[in-house]
Amino acid sequence: LRTGFPEVIWGPGKTPEQIAQIMQAMRDRNASFPGNWGAVVMATRIEAEVYDRIREIIPQAIYYSTAKICALENDGFMKPRPGTIGLLSAGTADLPVAEEAAITAELCGFRVQRLWDVGVAGIHRLLSNVQVLTQADVLIVVAGMEGALPSVVAGLADCPVIAVPTSVGYGASFNGMSALLTMLNSCAIGIGVVNIDNGFGAAMLAGQILRTAAKIDKE
Amino acid sequence: LRTGFPEVIWGPGKTPEQIAQIMQAMRDRNASFPGNWGAVVMATRIEAEVYDRIREIIPQAIYYSTAKICALENDGFMKPRPGTIGLLSAGTADLPVAEEAAITAELCGFRVQRLWDVGVAGIHRLLSNVQVLTQADVLIVVAGMEGALPSVVAGLADCPVIAVPTSVGYGASFNGMSALLTMLNSCAIGIGVVNIDNGFGAAMLAGQILRTAAKIDKE
Amino acid sequence: LRTGFPEVIWGPGKTPEQIAQIMQAMRDRNASFPGNWGAVVMATRIEAEVYDRIREIIPQAIYYSTAKICALENDGFMKPRPGTIGLLSAGTADLPVAEEAAITAELCGFRVQRLWDVGVAGIHRLLSNVQVLTQADVLIVVAGMEGALPSVVAGLADCPVIAVPTSVGYGASFNGMSALLTMLNSCAIGIGVVNIDNGFGAAMLAGQILRTAAKIDKE
Amino acid sequence: LRTGFPEVIWGPGKTPEQIAQIMQAMRDRNASFPGNWGAVVMATRIEAEVYDRIREIIPQAIYYSTAKICALENDGFMKPRPGTIGLLSAGTADLPVAEEAAITAELCGFRVQRLWDVGVAGIHRLLSNVQVLTQADVLIVVAGMEGALPSVVAGLADCPVIAVPTSVGYGASFNGMSALLTMLNSCAIGIGVVNIDNGFGAAMLAGQILRTAAKIDKE
Amino acid sequence: LRTGFPEVIWGPGKTPEQIAQIMQAMRDRNASFPGNWGAVVMATRIEAEVYDRIREIIPQAIYYSTAKICALENDGFMKPRPGTIGLLSAGTADLPVAEEAAITAELCGFRVQRLWDVGVAGIHRLLSNVQVLTQADVLIVVAGMEGALPSVVAGLADCPVIAVPTSVGYGASFNGMSALLTMLNSCAIGIGVVNIDNGFGAAMLAGQILRTAAKIDKE
Amino acid sequence: LRTGFPEVIWGPGKTPEQIAQIMQAMRDRNASFPGNWGAVVMATRIEAEVYDRIREIIPQAIYYSTAKICALENDGFMKPRPGTIGLLSAGTADLPVAEEAAITAELCGFRVQRLWDVGVAGIHRLLSNVQVLTQADVLIVVAGMEGALPSVVAGLADCPVIAVPTSVGYGASFNGMSALLTMLNSCAIGIGVVNIDNGFGAAMLAGQILRTAAKIDKE
Amino acid sequence: LRTGFPEVIWGPGKTPEQIAQIMQAMRDRNASFPGNWGAVVMATRIEAEVYDRIREIIPQAIYYSTAKICALENDGFMKPRPGTIGLLSAGTADLPVAEEAAITAELCGFRVQRLWDVGVAGIHRLLSNVQVLTQADVLIVVAGMEGALPSVVAGLADCPVIAVPTSVGYGASFNGMSALLTMLNSCAIGIGVVNIDNGFGAAMLAGQILRTAAKIDKE
Amino acid sequence: LRTGFPEVIWGPGKTPEQIAQIMQAMRDRNASFPGNWGAVVMATRIEAEVYDRIREIIPQAIYYSTAKICALENDGFMKPRPGTIGLLSAGTADLPVAEEAAITAELCGFRVQRLWDVGVAGIHRLLSNVQVLTQADVLIVVAGMEGALPSVVAGLADCPVIAVPTSVGYGASFNGMSALLTMLNSCAIGIGVVNIDNGFGAAMLAGQILRTAAKIDKE
Ligand SMILES: Nc1ncnc2c1ncn2[C@@H]1O[C@H](COP(=O)(O)O)[C@@H](O)[C@H]1O
Ligand SMILES: Nc1ncnc2c1ncn2[C@@H]1O[C@H](COP(=O)(O)O)[C@@H](O)[C@H]1O
Ligand SMILES: Nc1ncnc2c1ncn2[C@@H]1O[C@H](COP(=O)(O)O)[C@@H](O)[C@H]1O
Ligand SMILES: Nc1ncnc2c1ncn2[C@@H]1O[C@H](COP(=O)(O)O)[C@@H](O)[C@H]1O
Ligand SMILES: [Mg+2]
Ligand SMILES: [Mg+2]
Ligand SMILES: [Mg+2]
Ligand SMILES: [Mg+2]
Ligand SMILES: [Mg+2]
Ligand SMILES: [Mg+2]
Ligand SMILES: [Mg+2]
Ligand SMILES: [Mg+2]
Repeated sequence: LRTGFPEVIWGPGKTPEQIAQIMQAMRDRNASFPGNWGAVVMATRIEAEVYDRIREIIPQAIYYSTAKICALENDGFMKPRPGTIGLLSAGTADLPVAEEAAITAELCGFRVQRLWDVGVAGIHRLLSNVQVLTQADVLIVVAGMEGALPSVVAGLADCPVIAVPTSVGYGASFNGMSALLTMLNSCAIGIGVVNIDNGFGAAMLAGQILRTAAKIDKE
Repeated sequence: LRTGFPEVIWGPGKTPEQIAQIMQAMRDRNASFPGNWGAVVMATRIEAEVYDRIREIIPQAIYYSTAKICALENDGFMKPRPGTIGLLSAGTADLPVAEEAAITAELCGFRVQRLWDVGVAGIHRLLSNVQVLTQADVLIVVAGMEGALPSVVAGLADCPVIAVPTSVGYGASFNGMSALLTMLNSCAIGIGVVNIDNGFGAAMLAGQILRTAAKIDKE
Repeated sequence: LRTGFPEVIWGPGKTPEQIAQIMQAMRDRNASFPGNWGAVVMATRIEAEVYDRIREIIPQAIYYSTAKICALENDGFMKPRPGTIGLLSAGTADLPVAEEAAITAELCGFRVQRLWDVGVAGIHRLLSNVQVLTQADVLIVVAGMEGALPSVVAGLADCPVIAVPTSVGYGASFNGMSALLTMLNSCAIGIGVVNIDNGFGAAMLAGQILRTAAKIDKE
Repeated sequence: LRTGFPEVIWGPGKTPEQIAQIMQAMRDRNASFPGNWGAVVMATRIEAEVYDRIREIIPQAIYYSTAKICALENDGFMKPRPGTIGLLSAGTADLPVAEEAAITAELCGFRVQRLWDVGVAGIHRLLSNVQVLTQADVLIVVAGMEGALPSVVAGLADCPVIAVPTSVGYGASFNGMSALLTMLNSCAIGIGVVNIDNGFGAAMLAGQILRTAAKIDKE
Repeated sequence: LRTGFPEVIWGPGKTPEQIAQIMQAMRDRNASFPGNWGAVVMATRIEAEVYDRIREIIPQAIYYSTAKICALENDGFMKPRPGTIGLLSAGTADLPVAEEAAITAELCGFRVQRLWDVGVAGIHRLLSNVQVLTQADVLIVVAGMEGALPSVVAGLADCPVIAVPTSVGYGASFNGMSALLTMLNSCAIGIGVVNIDNGFGAAMLAGQILRTAAKIDKE
Repeated sequence: LRTGFPEVIWGPGKTPEQIAQIMQAMRDRNASFPGNWGAVVMATRIEAEVYDRIREIIPQAIYYSTAKICALENDGFMKPRPGTIGLLSAGTADLPVAEEAAITAELCGFRVQRLWDVGVAGIHRLLSNVQVLTQADVLIVVAGMEGALPSVVAGLADCPVIAVPTSVGYGASFNGMSALLTMLNSCAIGIGVVNIDNGFGAAMLAGQILRTAAKIDKE
Repeated sequence: LRTGFPEVIWGPGKTPEQIAQIMQAMRDRNASFPGNWGAVVMATRIEAEVYDRIREIIPQAIYYSTAKICALENDGFMKPRPGTIGLLSAGTADLPVAEEAAITAELCGFRVQRLWDVGVAGIHRLLSNVQVLTQADVLIVVAGMEGALPSVVAGLADCPVIAVPTSVGYGASFNGMSALLTMLNSCAIGIGVVNIDNGFGAAMLAGQILRTAAKIDKE
Repeated sequence: LRTGFPEVIWGPGKTPEQIAQIMQAMRDRNASFPGNWGAVVMATRIEAEVYDRIREIIPQAIYYSTAKICALENDGFMKPRPGTIGLLSAGTADLPVAEEAAITAELCGFRVQRLWDVGVAGIHRLLSNVQVLTQADVLIVVAGMEGALPSVVAGLADCPVIAVPTSVGYGASFNGMSALLTMLNSCAIGIGVVNIDNGFGAAMLAGQILRTAAKIDKE
């Protein structure tokens, strides 16, 4: 496995049958590498009706409905990895993207601490939960509309911050463009940005960072 | 005078001689309305060398170098108006725009309380000066790059907030576009946005708001 | 209540059941603050079918169909506040946004004077209703397509103008972008701009301005 | 001559010597068609210093400094053509574009009635000069920043309106983009738009319209 | 009637019942001005099913299906006006926009000569129909995708050209943006541009031009 | 040599000394492959003053001033290659880009037939030179502003067309964006587009096409 | 036949009946040129249901479902042409565009060698299939999202590369804009770009290139 | 020190005197925290002439000319930190940005392994240096124009990749926009993107990642 993480199936544009078949093939291939790290098989952007059909074919398939992730989990893949991912979201509408990140990270074996609805327009809610920031080894911060949360968070925290703009908003949000630009222009230090709505990619980057930490550990 | 404020001269594209001539004509016209509110004459976006030449023609002309405003002040125009304008800026580079707003407001007779360098990447500096927000009747918030400050401020304050994006930044700031979009997409309540770098317009809107307050007062 | 206004529910992406539940929770919380200003509970961007389902759960829920607002009103919340909001719209297609602003403002207790269909291509209709402009303490001006109405209005009026671009138009209107840019670039004085189609936000800003007036009043 | 108008020289990127040489060649070619309509030779976007050098080579060359047009005029070319072009501009900074249109039209033999500084933020100045609109056979309306003037004018006038956006403005004017979009989205009837700052093209289109009128006349 | 043309109803966002009611009201108002020029009542962007319902209410309503125009015609309104409109389109997919222009012009009483499918990639078809260009008093040229047809036509013709970009295309056509920019940047002389897909507006501008011609005629 | 063409030096951002040094190093390396195809060494985007300094260091350096190319030519590299490149440009201002393509192609050993100033607004000039199109094996078509020339040319020719948009224009040309979009959206068949102002790249693609032809020949 | 290739029908916006009728007309016209090169008749962007209806009318119509192409093939049209087209795609989702190119090329008589799923994020898969690149006479490279594949391919290959950006992606892919810009900005030599999703156009350009080769061959 | 890194001075818009004064103030403040991690004082985007003036004021000031960084180094600040940063750049013109990242990282005490000129158009150079990728704990990849390098690198490496788009390019590179979009849309896993030309920010993020690693180490 090239990157050490499971190859993940991108759901859109595939039939439930195709997805089920790829999942089974991946599981079988993984079975020849018992106990290995990336042994989970997952598919993202799966609608509930698509999952219903997949489950008819693969009864063990599990579904995370907010995250829209379908997964085949197997024994041992979830032994906890070192490091904690703090996962923050600005508004209720950002939850699907935030949960895509959270479930992906958990399926990779990482501990995730969630903190929802801490948008900057009500800064006190963030400030009264600041321990989530100080306890994390890496932070994923999800926000749409003005996308200002990662800047504030990176100013308060002392670890890498992965900023995920979402397409939440209307009018001049231009489908996430506004939040994306905000995050790229942040004055705060230690922020890396991923594509709009890319919760999956953020979790993968967080995982890479924690694995680096673990490897240096052993040097 | 149509709006009750001085007609202001937009400097760019005019020679010093033209500016001086218009200023004198305006002052003379204003002289026929003694004691009136808008009696100050001012020009914006005036470079230092342009001012040097104007002063040769009109020795009483005053210059505010950071704000790049040149003004003819006369007795009585500065009697304090009711209401306080809180004026915040995010970074050092935003100062010219912030001062354009500040001087414009002061030349209109309003009290201005400045709070500089309170960008959201260091939120504690803003939080330890929160009395500026609570004491103001209207706030002008100036920010470039990610432009997130007005959102945080509007969440903390209980008065109208005028957001001024600046062209400060580079790369994906797209000359203020990023900050502008951030401000338009704010989740916070009570924000009105003006054009990029338009400190003058923000002060005029703040003035209109305070005049409305004063007029309702008399009802 | 942070801002002194009711927390409002953003309808899109929520089920009728979720909306009804949040409305009930908000009403119950508000009941502990009897007679308070922001005691109304409201949800925006509610389609007629969504309302039908909400009413089955909460029979007292009221629906404003053009504004697409669903509200729980209770005794005393509507005692008139000082100040009048003049509310203008350019074309028929702008009405949903204009009514979102109007109903929001009225649910906050403000007097609203409506003036519809006064687009600049037929300037005489605006000019023969100019008393709406002179009698208002704050103006909300809603326009799509070229979005030129706020400029003309701000030139005629002597109070703050809140400009609301709408996504009405086609082709080079780019979903409200054209109207938004027009309003940001206005040469007129005293204009603050909100997001495309954000009638709600305009009403909230107008409310903030009138509350400021009322507070200064008491100084 | 293909279009019946003089071929005009586009100045930018040519040396004064090249411009002078092309002008002379064109004049000589025109001389073989005595008394013809398009007998004037002109060059646009000519800076003052470029003209100074051209005049050394061609002493009869005339310069219109605001319009930045250099011309070789000859006997008879200016006999008045039927029809009047009303030419309006919104602000002082739009004058170079407006004069490019005016001089071009006059060099083609048309009568031009100018009306400067009638921006929509002060609508009364336009309304007290409405006879310029009613007396014109075709109108050219030049405006930068919000670019709203053509809409208002087309609503008041009963003839074709040629809208010329200018690059005047800053920030969200995006070098004339905002004014251009405004004009393309106008709700008013009878507007054709030309490129940003294209005063020359507007005059040529106005000329084509009046020539059509003259030709139908003779049918 | 302000502009001398019928006020036209913009169909989108209105119910069939609303459209029918406005059409009847307009017809009744027009009836008090017998024999007048603009006596036709029309609605644009009307889908076939909408028309079916309108006809149930107003049996005399006529439908032009490619143009998607619904009209109430009455005696005498169609007496031919002086002048011919040449109407060209580049491709088959541009026909709805071209027909919107054609029917609008014909309903205003103008003679229209159509020339379809003369896109620049097959220039010979245009060249073998060049008489359409020379016989017209004003040309409307409709094109999507690269939008190059108006440039070629304006080079061949000696009358005003109204360029109509369409949203036909895919990928980098950006919904008509590409064709719009092409037309605004044309090197040819005598072109005015209208909004993307605005066949109606093009016909109205052509009508204005021909009416100007007719009026000067009488001077 | 990877592609069979000379590695070319991109001038901007390098000092004359650096350029001269790289040119000498390349020539020396090429010397070990006597008689080879890509033996010429060239640098693009070289201003005249930069060349003056280069020539002091390398006296044999040759300069093509319109193309802004500096080259070291050596014996044998210019033996003619099979195939003819037809090279068309729309306007005078496009010449530097067109000559960059022409000189590059000639330095690679290809025959180039130039046809300048055949913009679509005067289609007859193109049509009376149509033999340039029919005699070429590949065409390079350079155009700015509306960028319509490649469409017309590809419709007339029966060989591959390489379209080069230029940044020539103003206002809505957006530095070549308009011409670029036009070319990408062409309805004509057989067009490949290169970057704005990329005459060099167009010549290299043309060269690749002709080399392919030559190689298939030998199969 | 102007270009030597079949005129192809663009499916979108046409009814199945219209498409069938045009196909029959074209076949009949082609029948009068027996044995000719372009004798195939084809329609692109045909959905499966549209094909079902076409086949009812023309039973011999063939359907390529991934390519969404419907064709009428006839004897002799497919005799192999000289030259091989290498056809690469980056990801699974790019297949419809890649197959549109492949089938078009094959229907024109060219040999196509496919290489799917060689995206740059897993460069080894491309490198272990490098013989596809070296054996081709022209390459078509299809990629969405970051669109980086053509750059890598052009660096490895020694023949012309036609780059086809696809609209595959989400968020900042902006419907293919990102991939398009990547391809236009490539540092590699010998790349021509076509419109987003334009597999058909790429095949036609490849065909033109190979025909040029064949013609030069005969010189 | 908030983030554990030195506060860095942003040079643009400050006079040499101002920069020198801030540097001295920072050094004095740092002196009270002897031996601390962030004890270096640095200023970015410093032109050579600005440095010359700074050195007159602070003789110990050091200058890194390609990186345009001016620094005050003091004993002990440079004791090596655990972890290696691999730093790749695509082209020569990207060097200033790459060196800004390199020097910043080295001034923070990190080991940096540079690999220049490994753009994807010549993939073999990257492949023959693949040990730089496998030996690094975090990678910074700098690229302009098509910006494809980070995708290829992230596919080969097994550690976090920080992608830095540069404004290098012309035409459709749109000042780094193209490279930025490419990086955001990468299919490869484990990439975080920073602003265009933000070498400094990339180094800071890399530093944060390595510090996280060091801290987890101690758990
Ligand atoms: N939610 C997601 N967001 C972004 N990339 C994803 C997501 N899910 C899967 N992918 C990527 O898509 C690839 C699988 O695509 P496919 O082969 O079409 O299933 C994986 O290797 C991932 O890199
Ligand atoms: N129509 C609207 N336009 C803009 N913002 C709104 C609108 N309606 C509600 N909101 C905002 O959305 C917030 C509620 O979001 P939510 O918690 O998702 O219901 C409120 O506090 C308002 O600030
Ligand atoms: N100010 C102007 N704006 C737009 N087009 C112009 C202008 N001046 C000249 N032109 C056009 O440029 C052409 C001459 O370009 P050139 O051959 O480069 O001198 C003329 O035929 C005009 O169509
Ligand atoms: N090259 C750079 N790129 C991005 N941000 C920088 C750079 N150099 C300094 N900064 C930031 O700018 C801040 C200093 O700005 P100032 O107070 O204006 O000197 C620092 O705290 C850094 O976060
Ligand atoms: Mg931090
Ligand atoms: Mg507030
Ligand atoms: Mg006013
Ligand atoms: Mg009119
Ligand atoms: Mg013409
Ligand atoms: Mg052809
Ligand atoms: Mg190659
Ligand atoms: Mg990797």
